[in-house]
Order: sequence, then C-alpha cells, then structure tokens
Amino acid sequence: MSLLDYFRSSKPKTAPLAKERLQILVAHERKFRNQPSYLPQLQKELLDVIRKYVNVDQDAISVNFEQDDNQETLELNIVLPDYQQTNKPINS
Amino acid sequence: MSLLDYFRSSKPKTAPLAKERLQILVAHERKFRNQPSYLPQLQKELLDVIRKYVNVDQDAISVNFEQDDNQETLELNIVLPDYQQTNKPINS
Repeated sequence: MSLLDYFRSSKPKTAPLAKERLQILVAHERKFRNQPSYLPQLQKELLDVIRKYVNVDQDAISVNFEQDDNQETLELNIVLPDYQQTNKPINS
Repeated sequence: MSLLDYFRSSKPKTAPLAKERLQILVAHERKFRNQPSYLPQLQKELLDVIRKYVNVDQDAISVNFEQDDNQETLELNIVLPDYQQTNKPINS
C-alpha cells in the first residue's frame, strides 16, 4: 500500500466535509544517528510557507513528533478556517 | 490506524537502511472546489525549505500529485546523498 492509498482509504466517502483540512507529514529515515534532528526546526519553516497560502490559527494546528532508532516523523494537522479557502481570490 | 502507524508499519524492521530518505506528504481535504489548487506552488516552496537543511539533487526527488473531488495529495520522496546527512556540522 502506498502512502497515497492510505490517504485515499482514510478519507470520508460520502458526507460532505465539515471543515477544510491540511495534513502534512514528514518522515526521515535515518542512516546515521549521530546527527541532530532538524525536523522540529523544519516544522516552523513549513508552517511559515503554509501561511503564505492559507490563514492558520495557532490553535488550529496539532503537531505530533516521534523518533525512534531509524526514523523520525513529524505530523502536522491543520484545520483551515471556514471564512476563506485560500489567500488568493478566485479572479486573480 | 493513524498516519504515524503507517510510517511505523512500513519501515524496515531489521536490515540497516541503505539510504537516508525524506518523505513529505501534504493532503488537502477540500470543502470548496471552486478554488485553484495551491499544492503545486507549495511543492516548490517546501523543497526550498528542505534544501536549507539537506542537499537535494533534482534527480533524487520523485513527485506524485493526485486530485479528486474532495482531496488533493502531494507526495515528495527524496533520496538524500550519502556524503552528508545535513548541512549542519555536528560540532556547530
């Protein structure tokens, strides 16, 4: 199963979505373990990029960071506000 | 199953990893479909951020973008070069 299959299988099939959501996952498979992780810093920069496109309240972000011997994963779940879809107007 | 479970279950359990890999997924569940997608543009900016931390060859990136009625997914798979793990030296 590819990751895209995961997204396909986990989404709701019928009822319309109540909220717009943006989910970002970063997985780093590490060969060398003597290096500091850069994912926590990366997380801030990714959010800065996202904010160029959509308004994101700090409260609307949930973050999950996990680390084990071979892999680090960073998961950001963002609920987007109802009052806008993007910062870019349709007719631009 | 959460997305983090997916990452956990899909990684190799035994043999050491041959390559360092970075995988980035962005899923946008859309409520309103009359808006242009910003994921292709976002992709470029995400790669710019990643390149601050690791050297990434253009050839080492595979991109998968899918779109259906309710969801867009962007998947970036990056094989990191062997000769460095990050741009930041250990003793910095």
